[in-house]
Amino acid sequence: MSSDSLRITSANVIDLRVPTSDKLLGSDPFHKEPDYSSALLHLETDAGLRGVSVVFTVGAGTDWICHGIRDLCQLILGTTLEDFAAAPICLYRRLIDHHQLRWLHDGVFRMAAGAIINAMWDLWAKSLNKPLWKLLVDLEPEFVADCIDWRNISDALTRTEAIAMLRECREAMDRRENEMSKQGPKAYCTAGWLGLSDDEILATIRKLQQQGFDSFKLKVGRDLQQDVQRIRFMRDAIGPECNLMVDANQYWGLAEAKRHIEHYRSFGLKWIEEPIARDDVLGYVELAETFADADFDFACGEQAASPVIFKQLLKSEAIKYCQIDAVRVAGVNDVMAIILMAAKYDVPVCPHGGGIALCNMIQHYGMWDQIAVAGHSETQLVEYIDFLQEAVEHPVQVRDGCYVAPSAPGWGLEFLPDFIEQHRFPDGDIWQSRPPEKKGAAFEVPPDRNEG
Amino acid sequence: MSSDSLRITSANVIDLRVPTSDKLLGSDPFHKEPDYSSALLHLETDAGLRGVSVVFTVGAGTDWICHGIRDLCQLILGTTLEDFAAAPICLYRRLIDHHQLRWLHDGVFRMAAGAIINAMWDLWAKSLNKPLWKLLVDLEPEFVADCIDWRNISDALTRTEAIAMLRECREAMDRRENEMSKQGPKAYCTAGWLGLSDDEILATIRKLQQQGFDSFKLKVGRDLQQDVQRIRFMRDAIGPECNLMVDANQYWGLAEAKRHIEHYRSFGLKWIEEPIARDDVLGYVELAETFADADFDFACGEQAASPVIFKQLLKSEAIKYCQIDAVRVAGVNDVMAIILMAAKYDVPVCPHGGGIALCNMIQHYGMWDQIAVAGHSETQLVEYIDFLQEAVEHPVQVRDGCYVAPSAPGWGLEFLPDFIEQHRFPDGDIWQSRPPEKKGAAFEVPPDRNEG
Repeated sequence: MSSDSLRITSANVIDLRVPTSDKLLGSDPFHKEPDYSSALLHLETDAGLRGVSVVFTVGAGTDWICHGIRDLCQLILGTTLEDFAAAPICLYRRLIDHHQLRWLHDGVFRMAAGAIINAMWDLWAKSLNKPLWKLLVDLEPEFVADCIDWRNISDALTRTEAIAMLRECREAMDRRENEMSKQGPKAYCTAGWLGLSDDEILATIRKLQQQGFDSFKLKVGRDLQQDVQRIRFMRDAIGPECNLMVDANQYWGLAEAKRHIEHYRSFGLKWIEEPIARDDVLGYVELAETFADADFDFACGEQAASPVIFKQLLKSEAIKYCQIDAVRVAGVNDVMAIILMAAKYDVPVCPHGGGIALCNMIQHYGMWDQIAVAGHSETQLVEYIDFLQEAVEHPVQVRDGCYVAPSAPGWGLEFLPDFIEQHRFPDGDIWQSRPPEKKGAAFEVPPDRNEG
Repeated sequence: MSSDSLRITSANVIDLRVPTSDKLLGSDPFHKEPDYSSALLHLETDAGLRGVSVVFTVGAGTDWICHGIRDLCQLILGTTLEDFAAAPICLYRRLIDHHQLRWLHDGVFRMAAGAIINAMWDLWAKSLNKPLWKLLVDLEPEFVADCIDWRNISDALTRTEAIAMLRECREAMDRRENEMSKQGPKAYCTAGWLGLSDDEILATIRKLQQQGFDSFKLKVGRDLQQDVQRIRFMRDAIGPECNLMVDANQYWGLAEAKRHIEHYRSFGLKWIEEPIARDDVLGYVELAETFADADFDFACGEQAASPVIFKQLLKSEAIKYCQIDAVRVAGVNDVMAIILMAAKYDVPVCPHGGGIALCNMIQHYGMWDQIAVAGHSETQLVEYIDFLQEAVEHPVQVRDGCYVAPSAPGWGLEFLPDFIEQHRFPDGDIWQSRPPEKKGAAFEVPPDRNEG
């Protein structure tokens, strides 16, 4: 199929929400009752092919993202895939550098822009009948470099350095692609959601172990004593050889983080994730210095809003695991920049997963990173979420604790029509039949945790 | 009036836009054709009093903020002013720490939350028949401290330190209030908008000088040679005694910033504003070190999205002028935290102004800072914008280059009904009569400025 026949004729934006809070799946100290959700974008073309992307959210607020995507779609209706594929940076700039909209900063604005960018990449990969990772792997180093907005990051990584890194990887690329087609990125999974009982956690661990997992995560933050008990419980359950990570989801201030983490030294933890605010770069630097002698390192990124934040976290060597999110930054173009920076600073890319369908996207970044950028699979772990895969035509698969290389064209993000009809918010069957207070307007005043 | 009689009964959110791009007022390298705009919030009560606030924007995207405010208003309908005034931190947490909405990050989400918080403070001040600054000045130090979310900032400033600073200021507070009631915060103004001719700039300078101004700002960034010429032109026009500041609105990358700024050394500039990305803390640290021997310092803040970013810029001593924005962070509560941090690090608070009506708000922060926090007026400059004051019942006033202390109750943000009817987007008279391409969907691909 020739890409010049593909013109964007319409955009359909759907607010999908799943009442995961019923079972406290996904719960952590801050996001106590998340309803895993997605703003789902369908870009329709005159050739019938559809560009698809999602922005993952946790319930209320999905409509904010939908509103933004609908507005931005006005800027691309009538454009062609050929225009996009000739220079993806032009669409990126048209959105991110829009002379009025850029005032809206990151957050909703960058996420909405990312949705459009990701849907165009999906369309391009589908037009070539390739999974997204394969499209990325096949791009020339110079083309990749041309997709990136270097303005705010070239003090950490220059275009020239990036091209050299990509070129070096190409020598072993065929071998790596072959290897990874047989066994995709190594996966890890959260077994210890905050709201679950010990029995439920144990059952999850056992189920995951049967699937070959050896790396598990636990939510912490609220109560030091309970957290330490649970870390010990998890360590006992998985044994000394498995990887154990903990995640505080930004619940602590800096001093509080130090107090808690001091008690975490003896459990052989691999990483401590989001101990403090998502963009407190200097706080991360201080934590890394404070715990330089510990056997764990720090991880963050799922709420790092832009390449500028990642640049600082990487350049300062504050984080040792880079948890890109596929849909918080501005799509493939931003993620390319972040993965390349991580490779330069030798920081493993361990993408943030979640449902609905975030894992369907991040597996492609794991593939690209491990074939064409880092060029190895020795240190990376890609998050895996073991629920909500019934939403899509091409569920992610794990085998022997690793993702199975995705083969569906594009992101492989085709949602099943029935799932959409049921979970549309607020008019889907599942929401119509619920009492009004569960309609995403949950309301609570968190306890006072003023410090100082 | 007793505050317990005031219950929020409805919220009205209005998208107001002014086609300022016609005259290129407000233009800079990134925001080339801004249409100064506001998401205007009216919180109605059963007692007739109305809480008002605006979120300043530059055209397209105002509807995104309006959408967010409308959604968040669901969380406060039916609450009372009494509840709010008893502990403003509870409303702050209800919004900012909402367990699902917080996923939306800063930007649109924090701005929308700020709109509601600011409108509640407006209502409170009106119920006491005080201008906002006077309400703030009259608060007990402990109460101010209780308004602040300390979690992510107490490594820079503790609650105890803040209370001690506020208490120390109280000794001279009556005298300072008396002084500032006669002459408000010293103002400065941008004369050199990017799109204006030399003649237009000169005319603006002369007009401002007649109003007593001695501090002027110029937009730079795009073209080194033209910028240096214009800096020289402005310096010649205002003479050696006046303050001259330049503003690049984040147009440069770090290396580019250094190259440009190196040529700015000989003009006696007071500050260089937003040379690089709004949240590139480590970049600001590097610039401050690079130009430590220059006679200018660095300023930023109008797009710093949260107290966490300000904390880092202040604690690292990267910026020497703190340009809080009244409506980008989460309202009075966040701004209190930022002003207190600035005072601790001895950094003058020079709030960001703009139209529509942002100056009406920031003058209150200038008053509070200079009476009750910094407790002096020796180093601060508060931005002033000399247009669009016909929009409101209580225009800001300057006399002898200083703001006149505002006396209207609350923020003094009452918009004139005619102005609202004309500028409502997209159905107001002014927008109905314009060709469609001016309806906020301006569209441009910026030139390629890839570095490295």
